[in-house]
Parts: sequence; structure tokens; C-alpha cells
Amino acid sequence: MTSQMSFKGPEGQEDMPYLLTPGPLTTSRTVKLSLLADWGSRDVEFRKLVKEIRDELKRMAGCDDTYECVIVQGSGTFAIEAAVGALTPDKRKKTLVVANGAYGERAAKIIEKIGRPVELISLGDTTQVAPEHFTRRLDEDKSLSHVWLIHCETTSGVVNPLSELARETKSRGRIFMVDAMSSFGSLDVNMTRDGIDVLVSSSNKCVEGIPGFSYVLVKRDLLVASQGVSHSIVLDLYEQWKGLEANGQFRFTPPTHALVAFRQALRELDEEGGPPARLRRYSRNAQVLLKGMADLGIKPLLSGNAAGPIIQTFLTPRDPNFKFEEFYEKLRARGFAIYPGKLTKRDSFRIGTIGHLDESVMERVVVAIKDVLAEMNVKDMSPAE
Amino acid sequence: MTSQMSFKGPEGQEDMPYLLTPGPLTTSRTVKLSLLADWGSRDVEFRKLVKEIRDELKRMAGCDDTYECVIVQGSGTFAIEAAVGALTPDKRKKTLVVANGAYGERAAKIIEKIGRPVELISLGDTTQVAPEHFTRRLDEDKSLSHVWLIHCETTSGVVNPLSELARETKSRGRIFMVDAMSSFGSLDVNMTRDGIDVLVSSSNKCVEGIPGFSYVLVKRDLLVASQGVSHSIVLDLYEQWKGLEANGQFRFTPPTHALVAFRQALRELDEEGGPPARLRRYSRNAQVLLKGMADLGIKPLLSGNAAGPIIQTFLTPRDPNFKFEEFYEKLRARGFAIYPGKLTKRDSFRIGTIGHLDESVMERVVVAIKDVLAEMNVKDMSPAE
Repeated sequence: MTSQMSFKGPEGQEDMPYLLTPGPLTTSRTVKLSLLADWGSRDVEFRKLVKEIRDELKRMAGCDDTYECVIVQGSGTFAIEAAVGALTPDKRKKTLVVANGAYGERAAKIIEKIGRPVELISLGDTTQVAPEHFTRRLDEDKSLSHVWLIHCETTSGVVNPLSELARETKSRGRIFMVDAMSSFGSLDVNMTRDGIDVLVSSSNKCVEGIPGFSYVLVKRDLLVASQGVSHSIVLDLYEQWKGLEANGQFRFTPPTHALVAFRQALRELDEEGGPPARLRRYSRNAQVLLKGMADLGIKPLLSGNAAGPIIQTFLTPRDPNFKFEEFYEKLRARGFAIYPGKLTKRDSFRIGTIGHLDESVMERVVVAIKDVLAEMNVKDMSPAE
Repeated sequence: MTSQMSFKGPEGQEDMPYLLTPGPLTTSRTVKLSLLADWGSRDVEFRKLVKEIRDELKRMAGCDDTYECVIVQGSGTFAIEAAVGALTPDKRKKTLVVANGAYGERAAKIIEKIGRPVELISLGDTTQVAPEHFTRRLDEDKSLSHVWLIHCETTSGVVNPLSELARETKSRGRIFMVDAMSSFGSLDVNMTRDGIDVLVSSSNKCVEGIPGFSYVLVKRDLLVASQGVSHSIVLDLYEQWKGLEANGQFRFTPPTHALVAFRQALRELDEEGGPPARLRRYSRNAQVLLKGMADLGIKPLLSGNAAGPIIQTFLTPRDPNFKFEEFYEKLRARGFAIYPGKLTKRDSFRIGTIGHLDESVMERVVVAIKDVLAEMNVKDMSPAE
């Protein structure tokens, strides 16, 4: 925990809630203070800043010098579409998407929308992906040249075993692509060690920046081969890369403030001790929350390691007095913004455990939940069917 | 000029330069201060803020209730590609792009890239578009169903006569689309009065917000007819609109801070007296700059009304001691970031006259230019060939 952290309330804005979501999340006061300047996007100082960000992202992801980092304007889904548009095959070969939640399903939908062959293995919302879910398909069908997986699927919060899944894919000679949107910056990622070819993440997740851009870490040979392949001008990953390489500038106006904030956030992540230290803080956040909710009798969807430290899904109490909207607004009034559920089959709600906050915030949200449930006269906490 | 303006230097950041560019530009201190909070993108307060922005943009553009406003993540070019992907015809009909600079050429390139029929009339960099440049083509070829034009072409700064061009297009029964990126918020725009069907602009231009998003104002019937037409998921204008209409939320994470800053910027624009007052300030900025440069003997590219008040292009002095990079860095060290030229045929540089700054800043930049030219020993100001 870095010295500038204070948990008396989001600093400088006592009326703003803690954001207990998978992002946008609560950022530090110092990250926000970095926003108080206007930077010219073609200035040498700004170009240096962009280079520093790209280099640091590669370093954090364990990239050797065969990788490149390309920043894309827009949310994480923009980088997903940019990566898919540049890197998925369009003839004779196919991409296999292994989904265990809404974000996997969405990736398959994007690949299909832009006219690339795709096969979807859908495991529902709660199953942790294991090699046996897809390696047989790879062995059966040699046309499945690319695999797309989600590291932490925030639909439920389940964390998939990235290293193992990548190794099983690579040992079969396939291209391995991962959406590490909500995990990169805390969970262990080493692209070189595990042979991960493509990784996508965004500015407003575990690095704790503000929303505005996303990025793709990618093997240079794949990027070079993608020249002319994209379906889009603004999402053309190859041209975006060439622009950044040519003169350090973006082809189109970058979100300067979000980039400045991200550079500050990266420095604070380093000061905290890097992703391992951040993972410890988030894990402790999750433990404190799960323990507190268990004491209240509220059941988590997942158990054990699968649950991960990013976001926790809780099953809605069956008590007829429990109304999610009322629950949300009452917690919001107490300074905590939680997150609605996204499961297809069961009523649930989610509480994020990432962002610039620690276990003391988790203790306070549990107290607030206890108070709100009492106020709503909710007594039967057992899950609705 | 609003009371919170101060021109002693970009407020709170004395080391940052004034951005004399077409954006990102210098924003007010109060716009930047609005960035010091983290907003939840699904919170009711944030959804209200987004609605306020969409309504105010429609009001400013003179939209009656047949128009909609759709916000798109990313820079202005993202909204251009989203608009083109949703709204340009793909069979039997064609889009006519009338270009007088790089941004018109780029629009044609985007339309072509996504596989829609396009015809380009290219007038070079310095000609103001007039009806006679394209109305004959419309009369000859009925398949030209859509016209795309740039309001202020920042390649040179030339302002095209929007009302007249829209009326001539509409009187021939064609769809009229305008890139008003660098003009909307200051130059006169009234979509209902002039029959403009589609207008695209961005957050970091004359409204004086920070970069991070763009928006499309569009006739609802055209938007409704675009269901399923887009080439993209993230840039799908119809689905983005349906998402915002359904629950006030974005489909994908919005740049929350940029939106909060934009709401503040819109309020400050209103306090200043709306676009007419802002146009007066920018026009005065341009007059002071042009007068000062004329006194130094530096020639502008354009003359008269065509030059407009957004950005001024100056022809590079022929004196061999003039080196643009050195000129730029010396001005930058004095607190002014100017803009390189973009003309294809002549050496030039540009100075923007928009953003949170007034004529006193223009007077100071002229003094700085005089000092820098003396320091560089530049004497012959006549234009290079």
C-alpha cells in the first residue's frame, strides 16, 4: 500500500462513491491530479510519455524483443475488435473461442461480425476453462489455427488458468490470444514464458488509470503480417503501430489526459511493488469481502481459486423484501457503487475488489450491506432459485 | 469572456504551454478541475450527465425532434468511420466527397476502405468549396445519393460556406453529411434550418473539452434505417444509439472523465454566450494574430473570409536560417505549442486560435515569434516557393 493512499473517502471528492466494479474504478488522488494539464499530442514530451507507457506495458507483460505494444483509442472492446480485425484468419483457417461468460461470447460475435470464420465453445457462466474443454477440438480440426480466451471473465469473476491454457495451445502449434482486460496489472502474466501471442487490456482496470484507451501486446511477426488485413481505418492495428513507430505520434487524436494519468498509474503500480504486490492487496480485499458476506449469510457464486480476486458474484437473497435497485441506491447513498449481476440463469449481484482501495473499504462495505439489509428487512439470505 | 478565465499561463500548470493547435487544446481550469472524481458509468448521476450532454448538443446544433445524438468512444475520426459505416450507401448509390484538404481525402479513404462506393472531387488545399464544384455532378449522376463535406478544413484553415452548400445539396434531394469537427461550438450551425442530415464533431475542439470521444448528430429516420448496416461492432452507430436509449448506458466503457469535463465545458460555453460569443472571441484571436504576423512580414496562406477563425496557415519564410523544428522548440520553451503545416505543395506552419485563450495570448505569441526569429537570425520573411 503506497503512502498517498487514504481511505477516508475517494480523496478530494467526499461525495463520490467508491467504485466497486470492474472499471471504471477508483483511482488515486495523485493519478487524478495528473489530469490538471493540457498536453499537446505532437509535443516531444508527450511522445516520450507514450513511449514510456508502451515500454513499461511490454516489460510488465514479460515481453521479449519479439513483441510490440499498440495503443488503441476507446474502451477495451475497441482493442479487441482491432486485434481480431488484424490477427484472426479469414480463409480456410478458423478461430476457436472458448467462452465461460459474456465477454467470450462477445469476442465470438465480433469475429463473426467482421466476417472471419469462428467456432465457439460455450461453457456457461460458472465453469473454469480447462484444457480438456478444447484441446480435443484442436486435435480433431487442424483448421482451428487461433484460440481466443478470457483470463478473468467478469461475468462471474472466474479466473481461467492462463499459463496452462496457453501452453496446451502452443504445444499444438496454434496462435494463442487472450483478453486480459480485467486481470493485467495484478494476476501473473508472462507472455514470453507462456508463449502468449496476443494480449488485450485497457487503461481503467488493474493498472488503475482512467478510461479512454486500450492496448494490444502482440508478436511483431503477426503484426507485420497484418498489413492491409483490417476491416477498418481507425481500428487498423498495423497502421496504428506504424504511426507510433514512425514519429511517436498517434494517427488520430489520442486521449491525452487518460495517457498522462496512465503513466502516473504505472509509476504508482511500480512503487506498490508491481503486479505481485497489487495481487496481494486485491486478494486480501476479496478475502475480507467474502468472509464478511459469509458472516451475513450471503452466498458467493463461486468457491475456491476459481473465484479470483477481481470481482465477486453473490447470489441474490430469496427474501421477497430484497430488491436490487433499492439495495444499490441505499449502498450508493452510503458511498459504495456496486455492480449488477450478468448471469444468464440466476439472479445475482457483483462487488469489485480492484481499484485504489484496500481491506478497510471492504470492511466498511460489509457493514453498509448489513445496515441496508436490516433497513430493507431482508432476513432470508439463502439464494433465490 | 467568462470570469474564471485567466491568461497568465495555463492555470495551475505554469510549465505547460498554450496549445495553439486544432486540438487537443487549452481547456479552462474549471474544466480540468471537474476531472478530479471517479464516476461510475452505470450510476444514475452519470446517466443523467450523458443525457444532458446529448440534449445540449442537439440544442446547439439547432436540431428539432427528428434528430438524435450518438456519442462514440475515441477521436473524431472514430465518429466519422461510425457515421460512414452506418449511413453511406453500399449498392447502386454512391457518396460524393468534396475535398479541399487532407480531412476530406481521409473521409473518402474511409468510405472506400469499408467497401462503399465513393466519388472524390479534390480541389487541392486552398480552394474554398462552392456549389459549382459539385452540383453539376449531382445533376449528371443520380446515383450520387449522399454528399460529404468538411466545414472547416484544418489542413489550411479554410471555412466552407456550410448553409449554402447544404441548401444546394438538399434542393437536389440528396443526403447532406458534414464533418464539423473543428467548427461546431463556434461557427454558425443549424441543422434543421439548413437541412443538414448528419454532423460529426468531437469533444476537444470548440466546445473546449478534453479528448476522448466524438459524436454524431443525425436524422432519426436515417439512423433507424441503419440497423445491421455497420461493418463493425464497436463503431455500430445504430446499436450505440439503442444502448443509450434503452437505459442511458454505453454498450462499452465510456471515457467517464472526458464526459464529465465536456458537461462542464458545455456549461461554460453557455455562460460565455454560446457559439456566437465564442465565435467573436476566436475571430478576435485570429485578427490579432494575422495583424501581428503581417507586421512581422509573414504571409498567411489564405485571405479574407475563407481563412476563418479556427486555425491560420502561414507560409514558411524563405530565409535559409528558418528551420521549423528549431522555431517550434524555441516557441515551445516560451510557452506556446504551435502546429506543423500539412499542405502538400508549399512549406507552411499553422497556429490555432481556438481553446481557452484570448487576444492577449495572441499578442504574446506574436512577441515570442518576433523574438525567436531574431534569435534565429531570420530576416527574409517572404515565402519559400
